[in-house]
Amino acid sequence: MILLDGKKISSDIKTEIAEIVALFRKKGLRPPHLVTVSVGENAASQSYIRSKIKACEKVGFDSTNIKLDQNISESELLDVIEKLNVDPLVDGFIVQLPLPESIDEFKIISSIDPSKDVDGFHPVNLGKLLIGIDTFISATPMGILEMLKRYNIPTEGKDIAVLGRSNIVGKPIAVCLMQKTYPGDASVSVLHSRTKNLREKLRAADIVIAAIGKPHFVTSDMVGENAVVIDVGINSIPDAKNPGLTKLVGDVDFDNVAPKCSYITPVPGGVGLMTVAALLLNTLKAYKQRNGID
Amino acid sequence: MILLDGKKISSDIKTEIAEIVALFRKKGLRPPHLVTVSVGENAASQSYIRSKIKACEKVGFDSTNIKLDQNISESELLDVIEKLNVDPLVDGFIVQLPLPESIDEFKIISSIDPSKDVDGFHPVNLGKLLIGIDTFISATPMGILEMLKRYNIPTEGKDIAVLGRSNIVGKPIAVCLMQKTYPGDASVSVLHSRTKNLREKLRAADIVIAAIGKPHFVTSDMVGENAVVIDVGINSIPDAKNPGLTKLVGDVDFDNVAPKCSYITPVPGGVGLMTVAALLLNTLKAYKQRNGID
Repeated sequence: MILLDGKKISSDIKTEIAEIVALFRKKGLRPPHLVTVSVGENAASQSYIRSKIKACEKVGFDSTNIKLDQNISESELLDVIEKLNVDPLVDGFIVQLPLPESIDEFKIISSIDPSKDVDGFHPVNLGKLLIGIDTFISATPMGILEMLKRYNIPTEGKDIAVLGRSNIVGKPIAVCLMQKTYPGDASVSVLHSRTKNLREKLRAADIVIAAIGKPHFVTSDMVGENAVVIDVGINSIPDAKNPGLTKLVGDVDFDNVAPKCSYITPVPGGVGLMTVAALLLNTLKAYKQRNGID
Repeated sequence: MILLDGKKISSDIKTEIAEIVALFRKKGLRPPHLVTVSVGENAASQSYIRSKIKACEKVGFDSTNIKLDQNISESELLDVIEKLNVDPLVDGFIVQLPLPESIDEFKIISSIDPSKDVDGFHPVNLGKLLIGIDTFISATPMGILEMLKRYNIPTEGKDIAVLGRSNIVGKPIAVCLMQKTYPGDASVSVLHSRTKNLREKLRAADIVIAAIGKPHFVTSDMVGENAVVIDVGINSIPDAKNPGLTKLVGDVDFDNVAPKCSYITPVPGGVGLMTVAALLLNTLKAYKQRNGID
């Protein structure tokens, strides 16, 4: 069993990006610039944004954090986005979700210039994903693809079971892996709460991608020998060893599943750590496209 | 075994639409207006367009056929599209594919106002499809959904095998059927030329959607007892009974498969006939949205 080490890979990616950015600077080019937009004081959102900004600093990107008042109107937020859309010094930007209920998230995301949509949530970019046209892939699916790539895990002709059909993980990673590319060219099944014989279907899969948001849902009887298991879940549960505290666990019962696997991601330390690296890769890509760099 | 009768259903849909259009006229409203745009003299394209215009006439839609010269430039075609985008009397329009090689199809399709994209090929509409937001679904997937609906075929929790992963059938129908809607909420597998154990996978499916473009590819040993079989293939092969002539057959070996099925579509007379009806439904929908009619 080999651990798919999100810490190592994301660190490798950051090192590679930092080297590229250093080269840009040597050539007299400005570095890539990521802007984060957040509305209100959601503690989790602020923590995510801090880690994104920290990652930008680490690789040498410029970053700007626009923090907007909880009571901002939809049209004011649209104005902020329009300014970022036309600003030639902004390569990519993200609007941190969730937004206050008074604001239409889909409308906001649809107003982002798709060429700056480094979160990959704009419907144009999702549409391109579906038909296999190069685009910005959102952080979690892209993190999974990078992991498969960097461990040279074969996918062509493999049976991949995607457990969960969310808009940010299940459906996009499924359509990525059915394209005629690597990682991809697989036979992909999307399984979920309505699926019958779930145990058998998961057990028959060469690669299981668990993104159902239920702690320890995937048990060892649901996984075939030598399967590759990608655990996207990040669930907070009471920590038996430390009463009153919580701990993070995945959708997979790691301790019992891992011995059967050829590869498996730990939680924490797996896919979760890849998402910021994916955002950096997308920002670098947007920068290159904007500046005609190959 | 029950035949899924594309002729009957498409005729029913046309009758229903004609009644709705008659009501509009009674209220003094103009009828829906579909514009078809074609470039050059492709015989198949011209035949498709004729059938679309004929269907418009049948239901009482206005239609306009814009026939452009084979040598039109990309920018001239973009100008034509821009005029249609802003014309308040055009509810929906389609650009008949294929286009001459000198013209970038994706660019052309991306230039259509998504609210008039009744072919459902614009990336924004494909992106909405992926994340389950109401949109224009392209003709073949929509024809399949209508068939499932009008025969009340249960899909929730069913195992659906989609054979083929094209941009116009396999991938879009797969993502439709995995949404939490009816028809949908199914466990969907997308199978193709790289799939291993294809026979077993198809045989285990409750519903098979064959869209692989190979005549009589799906044989009776690949289909389970009481399966529902939707045959999207339209293949021209030599007609053994009429030497020198050809006949149309599907991707399914109908004669041998049909006796095992609970439902099956014939070819011709099945899904193929649904596509024009789907275009009419989309045009009606665009008209209603444009005019604020519920």
